[in-house]
Amino acid sequence: MAFVAGGALASAVSNAGGLGLIGGGYGEMDWLEAEIKRSHNSDIGTGFITWSLAKQPALLEAALAAKPKAIMLSFGNEAPFARQIKDAGALFICQVQTIEQALSAHDNGADIIVAQGSEAGGHGAIRGTISLVRETVDRLGNLPVVAAGGIADGRGLAAALMLGASGVLMGTRFYATQECLAPDEAKERTLDATGDATVRSSVVDMLRGKDWPAPYKLRTLQNDVLDQWHGREEQLSESLEEERKAYDSAAAERDFDHAAVIVGEATGLLKDVPLAAEVIEEIITQAEACLARPPGCL
Amino acid sequence: MAFVAGGALASAVSNAGGLGLIGGGYGEMDWLEAEIKRSHNSDIGTGFITWSLAKQPALLEAALAAKPKAIMLSFGNEAPFARQIKDAGALFICQVQTIEQALSAHDNGADIIVAQGSEAGGHGAIRGTISLVRETVDRLGNLPVVAAGGIADGRGLAAALMLGASGVLMGTRFYATQECLAPDEAKERTLDATGDATVRSSVVDMLRGKDWPAPYKLRTLQNDVLDQWHGREEQLSESLEEERKAYDSAAAERDFDHAAVIVGEATGLLKDVPLAAEVIEEIITQAEACLARPPGCL
Repeated sequence: MAFVAGGALASAVSNAGGLGLIGGGYGEMDWLEAEIKRSHNSDIGTGFITWSLAKQPALLEAALAAKPKAIMLSFGNEAPFARQIKDAGALFICQVQTIEQALSAHDNGADIIVAQGSEAGGHGAIRGTISLVRETVDRLGNLPVVAAGGIADGRGLAAALMLGASGVLMGTRFYATQECLAPDEAKERTLDATGDATVRSSVVDMLRGKDWPAPYKLRTLQNDVLDQWHGREEQLSESLEEERKAYDSAAAERDFDHAAVIVGEATGLLKDVPLAAEVIEEIITQAEACLARPPGCL
Repeated sequence: MAFVAGGALASAVSNAGGLGLIGGGYGEMDWLEAEIKRSHNSDIGTGFITWSLAKQPALLEAALAAKPKAIMLSFGNEAPFARQIKDAGALFICQVQTIEQALSAHDNGADIIVAQGSEAGGHGAIRGTISLVRETVDRLGNLPVVAAGGIADGRGLAAALMLGASGVLMGTRFYATQECLAPDEAKERTLDATGDATVRSSVVDMLRGKDWPAPYKLRTLQNDVLDQWHGREEQLSESLEEERKAYDSAAAERDFDHAAVIVGEATGLLKDVPLAAEVIEEIITQAEACLARPPGCL
């Protein structure tokens, strides 16, 4: 949720009873500080891409200076940052994609583990949410585990709780909210797509010049650029300079046949672009109804 | 579950209150007829690989002659078989991997849709269970939807019910049962592996000479053969004849560093090799407990 989850969205989520996170992104200090200010001291947190943060650790200092409720680290070795985060009094949330990473996060002092399945939008790896969450709970029952990836409604929340999770983390659902900083044209596309119409690929990172380490790839809506290059990454690398210029132009022009709309498989569940507070109220209401009247079995 | 779900496993599952399916596999008529006999007329079904069945439709006649409770078709166009199955009085179950396929199965008269996520062992595609099941229910609320992929316990069943599914289909959990026809050495390996240790790949199908159409690939435990060839399929195709011989020898010798153990991510949840009836009893007990005492939220 880099650049799309800003202070307005994070504070709206926290004010409605969730924990809103600013998407710390790739290290744009001015953007981060402006969005933290925009959150008006709500009890929010900030999420960072760990391998990117390692290149600009000053970002973490800036985030911690605002006394956040939590810092979430994803995609990389969290160990070097654990002490600083915990000493600052923030909850130390680690998002993981494998059991190996979950065990590492536990050993490095994580307060909360987010088990993120491959259904998720944006960067992720290959394990599916339902088995990863269940197995993480099974192995780390002493820690709160939060389910992420493919969840966008109250039924998903209720399912996650049944797996033994303590909550859910949602990106795609909040992408399609009023407060999200994504362009309206991009939000509209999430409403039309089924969950079949996303793909996890390295193509967009190549085009954006983001040097992501294996095994992480980016899930986005399928579009003309993915149709052309996904599975043809070697050929793309041969004409990369030219293709990058075309990509930058498309992004600037909000041409989402070519620029990426970064959402996950849960895009197939989106029907509207409400306020974040309305999302949370609807999810809680639906989850409570499901849990109060468990359905019958086949 | 071709060749590992035979009549003994299918009847044990049905006798314990489930619906046991014989894995109809690739068209070995003698094997299929022997296993149907071995099921002793329990209320079972048979599952077929649709694109393979199309080459040997006599298999379906043999299965229907035994008056099965259900026929399940997976991986291919179900339309040519729908009338024959329904006219024989069997439930027509269609396993799908995308929303597009789910809509097609609905239009072709499926009585039950199995929405199978990529976590599943054996063949499958790319969507994750939690989002595929939720979206299938959302779009086909008038049909019973069964969740498959990554589910191996009562918490998984309870989660599936919360998503709106009417039940679950489990392969990997029943692979590690007494009645399963897989070798004991293979079953043992499922107990040691975490769910991280599986991979979906075309390598084993190339080595077995199984000509699977896109987008289906086979999820198995990672082993030396996958380490060597996954991602190097072009090089494998250059030495395929030799490598096939080596693979066949490994399979005959039950050398599972080289031959495939065909299970899914739920392998990380397996701790024992019980009777199938014990599996079902434990799952029902755990699911009922979860549903009766919904957990608190974070």
